[in-house]
Amino acid sequence: MQSFPSLPGVTKRVSDLGEFGLIERIDRLARASGGREPVLGIGDDAALLRHRADEDVAVSTDAFVEGVHFRFDQEAPATAGRRAMAGALSDLAAMGARPLGVTCALAVPPNAELDPVMNLFSGLIEAARQHDAPLAGGNVTRARELSVVLTVVGAVRRGRALRRQGAKPGHRILVTGTLGGQALQRARGRVRRAPTPRLQAGQRLAADRLASACIDISDGLLADLGHLCRASGVGAEVDAEAVPRPRSLGVVARALGRAPEDWFLAGGEDYELLFTVRPGAPSCEELSGRLGLPVSEIGRITREDLVLLGAPEPPAGWRHF
Amino acid sequence: MQSFPSLPGVTKRVSDLGEFGLIERIDRLARASGGREPVLGIGDDAALLRHRADEDVAVSTDAFVEGVHFRFDQEAPATAGRRAMAGALSDLAAMGARPLGVTCALAVPPNAELDPVMNLFSGLIEAARQHDAPLAGGNVTRARELSVVLTVVGAVRRGRALRRQGAKPGHRILVTGTLGGQALQRARGRVRRAPTPRLQAGQRLAADRLASACIDISDGLLADLGHLCRASGVGAEVDAEAVPRPRSLGVVARALGRAPEDWFLAGGEDYELLFTVRPGAPSCEELSGRLGLPVSEIGRITREDLVLLGAPEPPAGWRHF
Repeated sequence: MQSFPSLPGVTKRVSDLGEFGLIERIDRLARASGGREPVLGIGDDAALLRHRADEDVAVSTDAFVEGVHFRFDQEAPATAGRRAMAGALSDLAAMGARPLGVTCALAVPPNAELDPVMNLFSGLIEAARQHDAPLAGGNVTRARELSVVLTVVGAVRRGRALRRQGAKPGHRILVTGTLGGQALQRARGRVRRAPTPRLQAGQRLAADRLASACIDISDGLLADLGHLCRASGVGAEVDAEAVPRPRSLGVVARALGRAPEDWFLAGGEDYELLFTVRPGAPSCEELSGRLGLPVSEIGRITREDLVLLGAPEPPAGWRHF
Repeated sequence: MQSFPSLPGVTKRVSDLGEFGLIERIDRLARASGGREPVLGIGDDAALLRHRADEDVAVSTDAFVEGVHFRFDQEAPATAGRRAMAGALSDLAAMGARPLGVTCALAVPPNAELDPVMNLFSGLIEAARQHDAPLAGGNVTRARELSVVLTVVGAVRRGRALRRQGAKPGHRILVTGTLGGQALQRARGRVRRAPTPRLQAGQRLAADRLASACIDISDGLLADLGHLCRASGVGAEVDAEAVPRPRSLGVVARALGRAPEDWFLAGGEDYELLFTVRPGAPSCEELSGRLGLPVSEIGRITREDLVLLGAPEPPAGWRHF
C-alpha cells in the first residue's frame, strides 16, 4: 500500500492538482500496482478490457452533477437526461464500439422533488433506447446533491477500436456534422435540444479502418484536437473558416454581440466525431455517404504546434500548447 | 416521453417513495420504453447484457458516498477504499462472473485534502489488483461531497450466471465463511479490516451448476435471504444457532451489552455468498473443499414465510415479509 504523506505544515488540496493532475496521479498509482493492465486504460474516451481473443469490451463512466453539468432552471429535466446519455454514449462512438448497455447510479437528496428526477430518467431512457443500449442496472443512494453517473459498456473487434493516437503529419482532419450548436443554445439561456452521439458513424469508421485517429468533441474543437494531437505526438493546422457550423450561428452571434468562434471552435458537447485520415483516403463526399452524415475537411496534421488560420483572434477557452 | 405530473397542491418527494420504490419506478419506465431488453436488468446483483451467443457481460454499479457509506474519522481512507471495491466486486461474485475490469467516477470538492483521496484510491486499486480486475477508466468531477461510483464489468457463460431466483422448497440454504464480522467492527467504532469478495467461489458455483439460487450478503443475512426468497417466490426456515460467526463475536457482544444476533443475522457488508442447493447436492464438507472456503448449512427453503428458529427475538433490522 502506497501512501502520500504531506510535507509537514503543508496541506495539499485536490484543487492544487486540478482534474488532469489528479487523474494522472490515479493512473500512475494504478500502473504501479503491478496487476494485469487493461488493453487501454485511463486517458482515452473509453477503456478497453481484454475479453476474448477477437474482441474487447469498451467501458466508460461519466458523472453528471446538478449545478455543475446541468441546472433545472436552464433546461427541462428530460433534456438534461437526453444530454447526459448522449455524452456517455458518445465515448463509445469515439471508440467505434457498439453499445451493449448502460448502468446508472443515482445519488439524490431524500427531499428532492420526485417529478424532475423521474423526468430526468425519462430523458436518459429515451436516449438509451434510441441507440439500442438498454438501461440495465440501477443504483440509488441518498446524497446531499443530485447526480447521475452513467457507465456505458460496448464491444469492439480486437485491434479495430478508434484511438486518439495514430494521427501522422500529412493526414487530413475531418469532422462530422456542425459545431457550436450546443454553445449557441447555452448562450441563449436555455438548452432545448440534446446532441446525437455518432454511434453508427464511429462503428463504420472502425469497421472499415477509415480513421487513423478519432475523438468525440465534448470539450470543444480546439481542446479535443489538442487531446488527439498530444496522444498522437503531432501538431495541426486548422482553417477556422472551414469549420462547419449551424446556419443560424452567425446571425445569433451578431445579435448577441458575441464572437461566433467562441462557439464553433471552443464550445463543447456537440459530440460530433473529429478524426484524421491517411493520404489517399476517400473524399469527404464519399465518407459522408458511408457515414450517413455531413463530413467536412478542416485542416491537416503537422509535425508540431496547433496553428489556427482564418480566425481574427484565438477564441475564449483556447490554449496554445 | 412519459411525464409524471403531480397532483395539484401535492409536491411528491423522493423520500415518499423510498429507495426501492424509486428503483421500481425507474425499472417500469425502462421496460415501458420498448427498446431491447437486457438478459437480466434492474433487480439482481448485476445486470446481464447480451453480448455473444455463448457469453453475457455482467455489469454492476455501486455508489460510495462520504457520510453515508464511509467516514474518514471512523476508518482509514485505504480501508474505506478496499471496502468499497470489495462491495462492488462482490456483485460479480454473486453472479458467478469473472471480472474484466472496473471504472471509477470520483466526485470531489476542490478544497478536499489530497492525501485521504489518494489513500482511498490506494485501497481501491489494491483490492482491484488482488482480484485481477484492472482499474481501467477514471472520471473526475467537482461536487459538494466526496463520492466514488464503481462499475464492475465481468463475463459469464450464457445460462450459467447465478441468480436470485431458482430456489425451491426443500433446497438447503448454505453460506460461506462467517457473518457479523463487519458489524462487530462498526460496533467497536473503527473498521480496520475490509471483507473479501468471494469471486472464485462464485465462479465455481456457476461453472459446476452447484447453486439453485445465490446472493451476496451486503444488507445482512435475513434481509438478503428475504431478497432471494422474494425473487424465487418461496419461504425459508433458518436456524439462528447454525449461522457461522467469528469466534470473538459472542464475547465482544457480552462485553458491550449488545445482542450478537443483531450482528450475524442483520449486520451487513460481510460479502459472503448465501446460496441454495438442490436435494442430493454435495455435503458442506465437499462443497467447502471445492469452493476453498468454509460452508455452513443454516436452513432450508419452504413454501412461504421466513421462519427464524433458535433466536430469542428477531434482531433489529428484521422485517417479516
